[in-house]
Amino acid sequence: MSNQKPRLPKGMRDFGPDKMAKRRFIFHAIRTTFEKFGFEALETPTMENLSVLTGKYGEEGDQLLFKVLNSGDYLSGTSVEDYTSGARSLSSKIAEKGLKYDLTVPFARYVVMNRHDLTLPFKRYQIQPVWRADRPQKGRYREFYQCDADVIGTDSLICEAEIILMMNEVFAKLGIRDYNIKINNRKILTGIAGMIGEPDKISELCVAIDKLDKIGPEKVLEELITKSFSDQAITALKPFLKVEGDNDRTLNNIKALLASSGPGQEGIREFEDILSYLAQFEAGDNHLEFDPRLARGLAYYTGTILEVKVNNVDIGSVSAGGRYDDLTGVFGMPGISGVGFSFGVDRIYDVMETLGLFPEDTSITTTVLVTNFDKASEPYAIEVLGQLRNAEVKSEIYPEPARLKKQMNYAHKKNIPYVLLIGEEEVSSNMMTLKDMRNGEQKKMTTPEIIEALKNG
Amino acid sequence: MSNQKPRLPKGMRDFGPDKMAKRRFIFHAIRTTFEKFGFEALETPTMENLSVLTGKYGEEGDQLLFKVLNSGDYLSGTSVEDYTSGARSLSSKIAEKGLKYDLTVPFARYVVMNRHDLTLPFKRYQIQPVWRADRPQKGRYREFYQCDADVIGTDSLICEAEIILMMNEVFAKLGIRDYNIKINNRKILTGIAGMIGEPDKISELCVAIDKLDKIGPEKVLEELITKSFSDQAITALKPFLKVEGDNDRTLNNIKALLASSGPGQEGIREFEDILSYLAQFEAGDNHLEFDPRLARGLAYYTGTILEVKVNNVDIGSVSAGGRYDDLTGVFGMPGISGVGFSFGVDRIYDVMETLGLFPEDTSITTTVLVTNFDKASEPYAIEVLGQLRNAEVKSEIYPEPARLKKQMNYAHKKNIPYVLLIGEEEVSSNMMTLKDMRNGEQKKMTTPEIIEALKNG
Repeated sequence: MSNQKPRLPKGMRDFGPDKMAKRRFIFHAIRTTFEKFGFEALETPTMENLSVLTGKYGEEGDQLLFKVLNSGDYLSGTSVEDYTSGARSLSSKIAEKGLKYDLTVPFARYVVMNRHDLTLPFKRYQIQPVWRADRPQKGRYREFYQCDADVIGTDSLICEAEIILMMNEVFAKLGIRDYNIKINNRKILTGIAGMIGEPDKISELCVAIDKLDKIGPEKVLEELITKSFSDQAITALKPFLKVEGDNDRTLNNIKALLASSGPGQEGIREFEDILSYLAQFEAGDNHLEFDPRLARGLAYYTGTILEVKVNNVDIGSVSAGGRYDDLTGVFGMPGISGVGFSFGVDRIYDVMETLGLFPEDTSITTTVLVTNFDKASEPYAIEVLGQLRNAEVKSEIYPEPARLKKQMNYAHKKNIPYVLLIGEEEVSSNMMTLKDMRNGEQKKMTTPEIIEALKNG
Repeated sequence: MSNQKPRLPKGMRDFGPDKMAKRRFIFHAIRTTFEKFGFEALETPTMENLSVLTGKYGEEGDQLLFKVLNSGDYLSGTSVEDYTSGARSLSSKIAEKGLKYDLTVPFARYVVMNRHDLTLPFKRYQIQPVWRADRPQKGRYREFYQCDADVIGTDSLICEAEIILMMNEVFAKLGIRDYNIKINNRKILTGIAGMIGEPDKISELCVAIDKLDKIGPEKVLEELITKSFSDQAITALKPFLKVEGDNDRTLNNIKALLASSGPGQEGIREFEDILSYLAQFEAGDNHLEFDPRLARGLAYYTGTILEVKVNNVDIGSVSAGGRYDDLTGVFGMPGISGVGFSFGVDRIYDVMETLGLFPEDTSITTTVLVTNFDKASEPYAIEVLGQLRNAEVKSEIYPEPARLKKQMNYAHKKNIPYVLLIGEEEVSSNMMTLKDMRNGEQKKMTTPEIIEALKNG
């Protein structure tokens, strides 16, 4: 047993009271929105069998999985040859479980295991931590929360419209006003790949185009040339990269450019249907920005793609999602399509801190501190405390008689807005002094008056 | 990549919508009570360095820790000798992190790391999962939640009284009525060990006496004999094991038996002080049962010990706690005393299922399903849906036109209490049919009437 100074593992965090209060403010906005739209909660375990996780996130993802050592004598059944053939070979024999890397694969596993009990369409949300053995850096942690909502078992574009409504509702609740929801459709990208004569290189096209914002059109074209895109393809692609203007103008441009592309036209029609649903919802300003170059690297998406960026803050996307046509095929259950999206809580937290958007009362936990002057007045103070709590006022007493300054300091540090002063005089007069810590005002009041004043405080 | 049927790891669980709703009902009761009493939320990471965890839970606990394989080439820096010297020796070199085993040790680690920023007394609660590589069995899982609240940095017995109030408040919120809060004080046990002339065998005494309920007094005495308790000690102990009657009678008996024991008298005085605080709170029936034989194995406790059992249900304790005088000494920071308690959510869940205590509406998530008859009525249905949501009614639309029976089945399976029928006739008359799924009643109503009816539904 060591007496060394304890430390946190690399890339992991504690969330103390103030951070917890702010994080819960964000989680509450997300959770209540998901539920208002009919999504139900699901939680899956921290650990999954590695047979479930491995091979789902590409070579790089596999290497970022945290693996859990088998219990007991995990080396029994291994040989010195397993050891000498190296870490990867040995780990398949000594670690059969890993920490979940995202919420999608465990969700797919849940759907497959419960397919006989689920009624489709199934609308689930999931707010849980995931783990990645990534190199930690500013804003990137090894343990972080994902907040996913998915509808599976329907192709209805109402779902896409509702995702846009939910994004807008969450940001409204959080007080984030200046943001864009970029929208595109994988079929439009398929159409572009076809129109430029490179239909089989859709993945390479998406990977390159995804970097447009970061590296600019010239570098994107350079990358495509290294991927053996033909000269004609490069020439044909240029107009797509330059399409600009408001949504109507962009839409008209793309319609013209993709006039003879079947998938392209289908992608455009889907986007127009979503706009029409949003109009039926009377959604008002929906913050949509049609961007035919939005690609999002994931090969997984097959229809609509969405990505939210907050303007004037240098942080990546804070929410994203899209439609997929095969959630569970990898587990032997084909044909489950759906659409889902996710909020990045850590980034939203940073945005809100940067813009100063957390309401002042977010980190108020206790409403009132009852002071503890001396043993003589303590019973009266405790009686009042009991009455405050009976009225559902969040309240506490300083647990032992102490100097008033110490007790005021406690209230100040804990961000408690009111202090109730109870000493000899107060006990005999049945009138207590309620002090508002924010403006220093003091007022003499009876217990019922205090309860009335604090009940909605 | 395998196409095998995916499975859950042993001892781990998914929580689908129904279970989640019920679990959240319990968590909500616990969380709101903690907060009403001034406790603030803390979350610590899933993983801790093994140097933090190891040696804190005894030999057995160390073996139940889930260890996480180091990332990358975890074998670099090891030799074939490390392999051949066996699992325990190798794991110290290939796994530096583990999953947390309880919430107390990470809390202690947090306190030590943040000691310069914390204002004492510090009241924190923590609701998080923990992991133990135990053999899974009915009611025992490898991943389960703990709900802890602790006050550190004060010896005030107000804290003990408030723990009893919180236990009562949580059970009242959950509708659990028939339970006892057993209370004792470690100093009373110390007094007993002294009175029987075996002051140095307090641990052995506690371990044996802890089994009194299960194995009876004869077996307890037999166990003590094998631990070399003297004949005189065994004889002297018998009256303690037989003390019975209501709290007053038990208290009087123990007072007499421990009349000449300093620690014994101190323990009794502390219990009486707690009773006196409860009276000041005007707590009413506090469910307390003074049991001088309550020991709880943990050497950790030094003052009050508490344990809650629900009557007429064959499940162990559902809540427990106690006072300790050294939380952080093991991390080189002595003198931090406190008192804390914990709820066992899985056991409370089983109690509530067994007694049928979950309110019927616990698992209602969506309030109303708007039906989708055909493409012609869909825009009207969507408009109504938007208005319902503007009024904060949890609502959803069946995402595509489908047979009514299918939609009703969806509402039924999802436990949605109301269905709003919107077809051609409803669109033209602006009157919709609201069906109550629980009694089958139908009523024609306008949108404002429907909103009014459902707003608090």
